[in-house]
Amino acid sequence: MNFESNISLAVDAIVFAYANSKLQVLLIQPKSGPFQNNWALPGGFVKTNEGLKDAVRRELQEETGIQVDYLEQLYTFGDQVDRDPRTRVVSVAYFALVNPKKLVLKADTDAAKAEWFPLDELPQLAYDHNIIIKVAIDRLKSKIQYQPIGFDLLNKEFVFSELEQLYMTILGHDIDRRNFRKKVLGFGILTETGKFRSEGSGRPAKLYRFNVSKYRALESKGFHFEIK
Amino acid sequence: MNFESNISLAVDAIVFAYANSKLQVLLIQPKSGPFQNNWALPGGFVKTNEGLKDAVRRELQEETGIQVDYLEQLYTFGDQVDRDPRTRVVSVAYFALVNPKKLVLKADTDAAKAEWFPLDELPQLAYDHNIIIKVAIDRLKSKIQYQPIGFDLLNKEFVFSELEQLYMTILGHDIDRRNFRKKVLGFGILTETGKFRSEGSGRPAKLYRFNVSKYRALESKGFHFEIK
Repeated sequence: MNFESNISLAVDAIVFAYANSKLQVLLIQPKSGPFQNNWALPGGFVKTNEGLKDAVRRELQEETGIQVDYLEQLYTFGDQVDRDPRTRVVSVAYFALVNPKKLVLKADTDAAKAEWFPLDELPQLAYDHNIIIKVAIDRLKSKIQYQPIGFDLLNKEFVFSELEQLYMTILGHDIDRRNFRKKVLGFGILTETGKFRSEGSGRPAKLYRFNVSKYRALESKGFHFEIK
Repeated sequence: MNFESNISLAVDAIVFAYANSKLQVLLIQPKSGPFQNNWALPGGFVKTNEGLKDAVRRELQEETGIQVDYLEQLYTFGDQVDRDPRTRVVSVAYFALVNPKKLVLKADTDAAKAEWFPLDELPQLAYDHNIIIKVAIDRLKSKIQYQPIGFDLLNKEFVFSELEQLYMTILGHDIDRRNFRKKVLGFGILTETGKFRSEGSGRPAKLYRFNVSKYRALESKGFHFEIK
């Protein structure tokens, strides 16, 4: 029973990763449909007895083999009634962040192709997917300023300059590095692993981990992560 | 053509107003359906060729006679597949803010009843609507701290204490009034109307207006409204 209308419901996933000092987004080419040879976001129709989040996880698994850590509802795209040439489709978009371990994709999936694209080299995408990605980037930019979600994009152990570089990449501008370091270390949400990494000719850099439980404790006291 | 599934798409509206120093929410009783004698949020099914925002505006007009100023997509509720006892319904919820002029409701609408309820006197609602309202309040609380959307809830001309009281009501706690006044007036986003209002035995209070164009100008320069 479908009330009064004939609308199909889909989900789309904007999966971000961070590699080569660039933000990367996961795209696929569908095996069939009106955009068969086009790049598009992973996604598909929601099943009748399937929760929205479950549908996103299933589609990502089927089309790219990826399992996501951080997943959040972004926006529901449905003001433009002809965004799909076949029929009226409203799509609930989710954005996800994965760490670099997930960068290697499974070869055999439901999609014809699945690949990571640096954000500054995006092709023309199917449907309104370029717009959806734009909305996701804006959300990510605004979110990392008050929630430390950036850590989901790094390896479990990282040197401080990687965190800095990530913030500069996402925000799209330089940051006051001294102030950033002072602020982040001051929060006490980074744990020193006791290990070091050597790179180039500089002295070895400390390897840190994000301290989730410490962050949760601060958060419950009304702590607000503010990075500009 | 409905792909692979049988899901109905609805919209719901959480309309807030501010009266008697309380936040009020607009509820209706449907004329038919499984929750005929229950209070519920205004809303209904989206038509095949109707944008989501248009559907919300139409349902609000039909069920309550209200036209809204500020309207924003809140969240799409669709993880719980049995939230409607009839069939699978996914609902895109929007929240709206209206000024006190809109408090008087039209008598003859598509709903059996339409009434404002103070937030602390909400009845048990149909579907998952109590949860939806909870999500909307959280969004409103967080939003008024960094965007001056609170002004949409006041009359065009207001005395400063009304703005203060509104913030305390929404945040649910006292604020540092001196600091609040200093901050808000410091932004330069209030314009003195040159008029005064007398209340009780105190001296007459200045009437202000929110200066939208000044705010937009500040906003475009990266200004961030921060009220705690």
